Amino acid sequence: MTHPLLNVMRRAASLARQHHPHPNPAVGAVLITDSGAVIGEGAHQKPGMPHAEIEALKTVEGATTDATMVVTMEPCAHQGRTPPCVDAIIDAGIKRVVIGGIDPDTKVSGRGMERLRQGGISVIDGVDGFDYEEVDPAYFHHRRTGRPLVTLKTASTLDGQVAAADGTSQWITGEDARRDSHRLRAANDVIMVGAGTLIADDPRLTAVTPDDDHHQPLPVVVGGARPLPSDARVWSRPHLVVSTETQEPHDTLVVSPSPDGRPNVIEMMTALADRGHLSIMVEGGPTLSSALLHEGLINRIVCYFAPALGGGVGMGMFGGAFPTLTAMTPLAIESVTMVGADIKVIATPQAS
Amino acid sequence: MTHPLLNVMRRAASLARQHHPHPNPAVGAVLITDSGAVIGEGAHQKPGMPHAEIEALKTVEGATTDATMVVTMEPCAHQGRTPPCVDAIIDAGIKRVVIGGIDPDTKVSGRGMERLRQGGISVIDGVDGFDYEEVDPAYFHHRRTGRPLVTLKTASTLDGQVAAADGTSQWITGEDARRDSHRLRAANDVIMVGAGTLIADDPRLTAVTPDDDHHQPLPVVVGGARPLPSDARVWSRPHLVVSTETQEPHDTLVVSPSPDGRPNVIEMMTALADRGHLSIMVEGGPTLSSALLHEGLINRIVCYFAPALGGGVGMGMFGGAFPTLTAMTPLAIESVTMVGADIKVIATPQAS
Repeated sequence: MTHPLLNVMRRAASLARQHHPHPNPAVGAVLITDSGAVIGEGAHQKPGMPHAEIEALKTVEGATTDATMVVTMEPCAHQGRTPPCVDAIIDAGIKRVVIGGIDPDTKVSGRGMERLRQGGISVIDGVDGFDYEEVDPAYFHHRRTGRPLVTLKTASTLDGQVAAADGTSQWITGEDARRDSHRLRAANDVIMVGAGTLIADDPRLTAVTPDDDHHQPLPVVVGGARPLPSDARVWSRPHLVVSTETQEPHDTLVVSPSPDGRPNVIEMMTALADRGHLSIMVEGGPTLSSALLHEGLINRIVCYFAPALGGGVGMGMFGGAFPTLTAMTPLAIESVTMVGADIKVIATPQAS
Repeated sequence: MTHPLLNVMRRAASLARQHHPHPNPAVGAVLITDSGAVIGEGAHQKPGMPHAEIEALKTVEGATTDATMVVTMEPCAHQGRTPPCVDAIIDAGIKRVVIGGIDPDTKVSGRGMERLRQGGISVIDGVDGFDYEEVDPAYFHHRRTGRPLVTLKTASTLDGQVAAADGTSQWITGEDARRDSHRLRAANDVIMVGAGTLIADDPRLTAVTPDDDHHQPLPVVVGGARPLPSDARVWSRPHLVVSTETQEPHDTLVVSPSPDGRPNVIEMMTALADRGHLSIMVEGGPTLSSALLHEGLINRIVCYFAPALGGGVGMGMFGGAFPTLTAMTPLAIESVTMVGADIKVIATPQAS
């Protein structure tokens, strides 16, 4: 049997996903009466703005006394840029709070639930059939690992060539796949490329979607062996360069070098997370992708395969060598679908 | 509305597909009464054995007078290794023959139909909803082009590596995909590999399927730059070597050299067809696959992708260069399915 509040919780989750409040978690809240009528709803929209619980309370016309709040994650009990939500909930006379689960952040985890109970409010932790981590997987990943959730996106021929030998690569895949990957960009905090890709393709690294008003990911360029170009389309927008030394005039995240002289990618990812970038989409090239894969930093891979064969060796998805069969990285295939004329595969690298 | 004889024709097709009579076409026949009762059925089993029409007539208990014969392709009107089928049909008193379509072989095309009509038999050419070429696509392809129908099969990581840099490749894909590809082998007249693959993998090139009694494809090894190994598992079975010069002690198909010194693959394919090999499955390696692709000789590609990443450059599906984006070979994707844990893509190269 479906939990009676599952649909209400799903509504709260769908409100949450409409916004992009990183480094805060995406949270949504719905207020209902005993009969199940919705009397208020809201979501956390941006850092510095009110949390979902407060947004929901603000929308109620009339009394909130004895209402139930259904919220995707435990309300906060601490004073941050905004006052603690638990106080507002207690003050509003809410009698029951149903949460998707507790905040994984060890600094706050469980305290909101405790404070609500101390305030005489009945708290229900979790709704069967609802995985609250799905509301904002990057937030949970970050709180567990200290690192951002990294998605590698590739666009290649069916035989795995992301570019021809002369570097040409634009529009291997079709219009639908491009639209789809722009939605992926818009869902991430950062869009990252290696300097080689910047030099070869001069990409804009914008997320172009039908919704003009959406969040734009921060372009991050990871410096490599070659100097950065002085002119690149992406330099005209806010951006970040990752390098082993300061790269004037760019905002530079300086990290120590790996043995090969390139930026240490583990240090880079931790530093990006510390700056509040919880979700990162990597669009190549092969050198960067390979470094991330071999350090176990890729959490998800989204491959678009064009209905075409390169028919020879151009540029593969990953650089360096695939030395021997036991060096394979196993994947869990999540889905295989058609996007227009292209094949889209979503997979998760597994510890081998 | 479905054609009233479509199911009977499909039954005839299914009988045909149980056998492998190349270089003759696979043909099946079903005899029915006016009320639709099946009174006989048969298929052409092997070259030199009776044709489907005769096999079906032999199974009838009682009279064949006034019966309808439903046969996947026009009956033959010529004396070959067996007498003309049309005479047997006329002699049996059949009143109506429903054919899937006329024989594409220009030496016989339409003559069987004509002879039946001259014999006073009503002939219906084609059944709506039934594509008779699907009964034996290789036969039709051969009669149209003079060449065999060539299927390239690849087994690779998701990033398109068919082997690691050290040559290791065995069992990249899983048990189900291997079983599936053995069925593909059994459905082809020839299984072809380049000498490089023979040297690297020493494959048995047998079709191992649950049905012990099935047809075994002829192993064909295409010689390249390196000398053939003196011992190889495949030498213990009937086999054929393709080379620019006789390769003792092997049965050798000698063809002229291409500019790169390797066997001319166009000449090779035509010669194989002339020997009666109408369907060929190619299992690599990259040099051979690339030569075939670039000469337009690959009619179908079946790619099995393992749930794994090579994560670097090993051996790709195709050798040589993918020089520039406009050199891509467009594909029509026929199907994308899961076979066990592997992804199977069937596609058809298109003229670019």
